[in-house]
Amino acid sequence: MDNVFTGSDQTSADYYFDSYSHFGIHEEMLKDTVRTKTYQNVIYHNSFLFKDKVVLDVGAGTGILSLFCAKGGAKHVYAVECSHMADMAQEIVKTNGYSDVITVLKGKIEEIDLPALHVDVIISEWMGYFLLFENMLNTVLYARDKWLVPGGVVLPDKASLYLTAIEDADYKQEKIDFWDRVYGFDMSCIRKQAMVEPLVDTVDQNQIVTNSQLLKTMDISKMNSGDASFTASFKLVAERNDFIHALVAYFDVAFTNCHKVMGFSTGPRSRATHWKQTVLYLEDVITICEGESLVGSMTVAPNTKNPRDVDITLSYSFSGKRCQARRTQFYKMR
Amino acid sequence: MDNVFTGSDQTSADYYFDSYSHFGIHEEMLKDTVRTKTYQNVIYHNSFLFKDKVVLDVGAGTGILSLFCAKGGAKHVYAVECSHMADMAQEIVKTNGYSDVITVLKGKIEEIDLPALHVDVIISEWMGYFLLFENMLNTVLYARDKWLVPGGVVLPDKASLYLTAIEDADYKQEKIDFWDRVYGFDMSCIRKQAMVEPLVDTVDQNQIVTNSQLLKTMDISKMNSGDASFTASFKLVAERNDFIHALVAYFDVAFTNCHKVMGFSTGPRSRATHWKQTVLYLEDVITICEGESLVGSMTVAPNTKNPRDVDITLSYSFSGKRCQARRTQFYKMR
Repeated sequence: MDNVFTGSDQTSADYYFDSYSHFGIHEEMLKDTVRTKTYQNVIYHNSFLFKDKVVLDVGAGTGILSLFCAKGGAKHVYAVECSHMADMAQEIVKTNGYSDVITVLKGKIEEIDLPALHVDVIISEWMGYFLLFENMLNTVLYARDKWLVPGGVVLPDKASLYLTAIEDADYKQEKIDFWDRVYGFDMSCIRKQAMVEPLVDTVDQNQIVTNSQLLKTMDISKMNSGDASFTASFKLVAERNDFIHALVAYFDVAFTNCHKVMGFSTGPRSRATHWKQTVLYLEDVITICEGESLVGSMTVAPNTKNPRDVDITLSYSFSGKRCQARRTQFYKMR
Repeated sequence: MDNVFTGSDQTSADYYFDSYSHFGIHEEMLKDTVRTKTYQNVIYHNSFLFKDKVVLDVGAGTGILSLFCAKGGAKHVYAVECSHMADMAQEIVKTNGYSDVITVLKGKIEEIDLPALHVDVIISEWMGYFLLFENMLNTVLYARDKWLVPGGVVLPDKASLYLTAIEDADYKQEKIDFWDRVYGFDMSCIRKQAMVEPLVDTVDQNQIVTNSQLLKTMDISKMNSGDASFTASFKLVAERNDFIHALVAYFDVAFTNCHKVMGFSTGPRSRATHWKQTVLYLEDVITICEGESLVGSMTVAPNTKNPRDVDITLSYSFSGKRCQARRTQFYKMR
């Protein structure tokens, strides 16, 4: 989903739930084969995790993961979906002959009555743009704490956020500087808004100027919800002489309980997914020489007014042969 | 805006107004140069329409049309915008030194107090997908009846809706038949939803199989709001042997009060705009021979529950050498 919304808390939340009622968003997710085939392979190739187990699918959508689990030998699957897509999931489960194995529950995880006291496995595709946008992770953690048996499995169980730096002169011009002169008029007040909002887009790997820095790894099976707010420092070292226009964030997820670790990356060197990458434009253009370092820290936290939004604070400092810069910028995923 | 919404009347209306608060939608419209440069040329090359005139800009967005009018010599421009973008428009007007000429009014046309008793010119870019989606035309007609002086000018003053037929085997497969088998599961209940929702997308002109049929021309300076509901018959004659998978609707607008008629088309033979075209997939695949005709009628009306949605009823009948078909299909733009 593109970020087309700036409403009040009320309508933003409505939009979050209702946007998943439309088939278009599920079509995009299903056709993201990096995403869907990874889950399919995890389930079909690791039947030891599912055979005769009770599974909870958090945010089931069309029910595709629940169907994989049922076909993969699960004893029972509870597919929880809060949007109207739950009605479709119910019909799809029936059409495909899995009504005895899959129970679709329409409602919010925090409000439903699960017919089982405990589940053996929690599976979910909760990741948003920049990993944490829409904050569905909290819902998974809530379900884990309420229903997962001791020693139960969470899939995926690891998620890592990375940062790198890119050259992006042309596109920064097109997306940001555009507002400085629009058909002859100064619309730079909109430029300020555009700078604050991270851009979700695919980055060509040839644009990458530095190494990638791991910012944070989350262990979904153990973490607390507060761990999704963090400050991480970074050091990005230039691999060539170039200009830096933006930092780029992306994430990996891993299923470490599989017979062999499985997972996927949403990074610019991997096959594109519907998550693309998240581009944070810098006010400065950094003229960096090979071997020089851009250092700083990033603070990530859900917005206090609207917890589905993500506030990002980026502080950076650069002292190179040809350029010095030091700045703190604020961004908001919404 | 993509159609990502199926909420209640309440939230759908909220979404309509709030989606225009985000700069992204304005960026897309401004960068649609077919759209924006046509308005710019209409205004800059026809100063006799604006010189010393009072202008009302209905749905001003960033204020770009108001700025064109002010630069084009208007005595005063009232820029009415109901979304939060009005605040940006206000700032843009000030930054560009037009505060004396342009008054930005934040609110709905139906609710604002216009400081002028009458206006000489109403300018608006009210057109939605399929011309009528979002039904902003009604707002323009309301403003016309309330404030336009007798003999005043509405820009644009003509809008025409057209229909043609296309071959689209591959994309119909990808968008519609996709749901028949999704990773081995039958999701055909979603196929039904996908069939009902017209697809907004660009059509390659090589896909066109028949002539284009004019369905309806609207005279914005004279029509009543009820005229946006209509039934029109069509006769589409094949220009070659081919298969028909979908009908395609598109529109033209014209500014006939210009010194020389100006305007643009959103048809598949013209340069692409952000409106693209509107594709209505047929349940049947029509095997048509050169010279044969697909005949029928299309009924268009705002949805009674949510007037920003558009209900479309398509009846068609075909009796060819190699194929017969007769069917009525319902669609809903939402």
